[in-house]
Amino acid sequence: MEKLVVIGLGLIGGSLALDLKKRNGYKVYGIDKNPAHIKKAIELGVIEQEINFAQLLDASVVIIAVPVDIIPQVTKKVLDVITENTLVFDVGSVKNQICKAVSEHPNRKNYVAAHPLAGTEFSGPEAAILNLFDKKVNILCEVDKTDWKILDKALSIFKQLNMRIKMMNPEEHDRHIAYVSHLSHVSSFMLGKTVLGIEKNEQHIFDMASTGFASTVRLAKSSATTWAPIFLQNKVNILRSLEEYIKNLKEFKEMIENDNNEDLQKIMNNTNYIKTVLNGIK
Amino acid sequence: MEKLVVIGLGLIGGSLALDLKKRNGYKVYGIDKNPAHIKKAIELGVIEQEINFAQLLDASVVIIAVPVDIIPQVTKKVLDVITENTLVFDVGSVKNQICKAVSEHPNRKNYVAAHPLAGTEFSGPEAAILNLFDKKVNILCEVDKTDWKILDKALSIFKQLNMRIKMMNPEEHDRHIAYVSHLSHVSSFMLGKTVLGIEKNEQHIFDMASTGFASTVRLAKSSATTWAPIFLQNKVNILRSLEEYIKNLKEFKEMIENDNNEDLQKIMNNTNYIKTVLNGIK
Repeated sequence: MEKLVVIGLGLIGGSLALDLKKRNGYKVYGIDKNPAHIKKAIELGVIEQEINFAQLLDASVVIIAVPVDIIPQVTKKVLDVITENTLVFDVGSVKNQICKAVSEHPNRKNYVAAHPLAGTEFSGPEAAILNLFDKKVNILCEVDKTDWKILDKALSIFKQLNMRIKMMNPEEHDRHIAYVSHLSHVSSFMLGKTVLGIEKNEQHIFDMASTGFASTVRLAKSSATTWAPIFLQNKVNILRSLEEYIKNLKEFKEMIENDNNEDLQKIMNNTNYIKTVLNGIK
Repeated sequence: MEKLVVIGLGLIGGSLALDLKKRNGYKVYGIDKNPAHIKKAIELGVIEQEINFAQLLDASVVIIAVPVDIIPQVTKKVLDVITENTLVFDVGSVKNQICKAVSEHPNRKNYVAAHPLAGTEFSGPEAAILNLFDKKVNILCEVDKTDWKILDKALSIFKQLNMRIKMMNPEEHDRHIAYVSHLSHVSSFMLGKTVLGIEKNEQHIFDMASTGFASTVRLAKSSATTWAPIFLQNKVNILRSLEEYIKNLKEFKEMIENDNNEDLQKIMNNTNYIKTVLNGIK
């Protein structure tokens, strides 16, 4: 049985472990600096048992699913010990820094920079679910730096997971993802903070949540240990998107102040175009 | 058969028409200044036929579901023509202005100020669906100014719709709803505007939407003709909530600028409390 090792047994790592065990019959091992995560992951059947870095030698696949700030050091540590047939891929939400960090590593060709665009607002091994990646997009960066047999193994795995593959360069990835994903998280966290800050009566929040608040604030349930490093590692792009967002909010606020019904309607009508976009261009 | 008249055949008015016809066997009539809405509503079985204000005389129930800026004038016009057994209620998302507008009307006792906290991001008669109000909260204001028999009729209807009733005064309603509902709409519209503004490549938005963007931007699909009047009519409260929101965004942005990992995590951990709140206090 081929050996799959997942480092970082959270939502994404755990879900990959579950899914690949089921779809490919891997024997799944885990590494996590949090002993409670290891215990929970074994209990839930997410992994078979814990191993250490020295035992990566005969691994067929190593998945790195730790917070983005430690992905570079962990990936390099993994690349240091694996053999030539091991596929190593990370699943981080920021790609430029990790691509740079490993670019000169002698085993760079064993590595694939991946970002599966999937998730929920939950975290930890208990958040691991089957079919999380089904029909989702997986962005791969700099695949030309990967050995073709290793890349082939990676693509087979992503195909088994029923993912759609997009290729992008890491700078482009980080720029787009800042707007489309990271900004949504900031806006949602701040919405949650604003409402919790003003509403002393929690019952009111609960009663009124069906007005759209519940879905808009959903991402504010996400893990701080996952997201703080993402915001910092993709800092330049996120700051730019936040500036734009704040500027738009201020303009909209002024239109309300000035009873500018016409411009408010115009902006909202234009923004309704998001319906068409999300209904699916192929 | 009792006669139900719905004025404004959009998402809320249309859904009430469908549901009350099914649950109570009303004969349902409609008024809408848009002839295409009337035509569509008849086609879809949302209403039986169009009537005019003079024909409200023998109505058992009149529901006012027009944009909030014209609710006061429409409600007064309705109260002018109905007879003593007619229940009139509106479903507007702002309550202070309408409550003030009708406070001195001779038929004030026939009126109930209601705000059913339900909806989707869709609009028009084709957005009307059954069971939209099931288990949702309906906020009623100043019910002490309603005749008790009329109020009893209203409560029976809301019970048939399986709604939970909350009583609030109109100022309190408008303040809470600004934060919990209206602010979510502004934040979502501006998120949509920001992303559409920067992303020339719509395919990228579509591909990356599963990262949380799709749910956070959902409300930006809402109707401009519904929402511009709400923002203007609840101006004072919305401006206050927007100021707070922008302030929080700026603080968060500064923390990112300063690589303040600790405070970022603290804020996000605190905001995670929204999980507990939304999981349901009774």
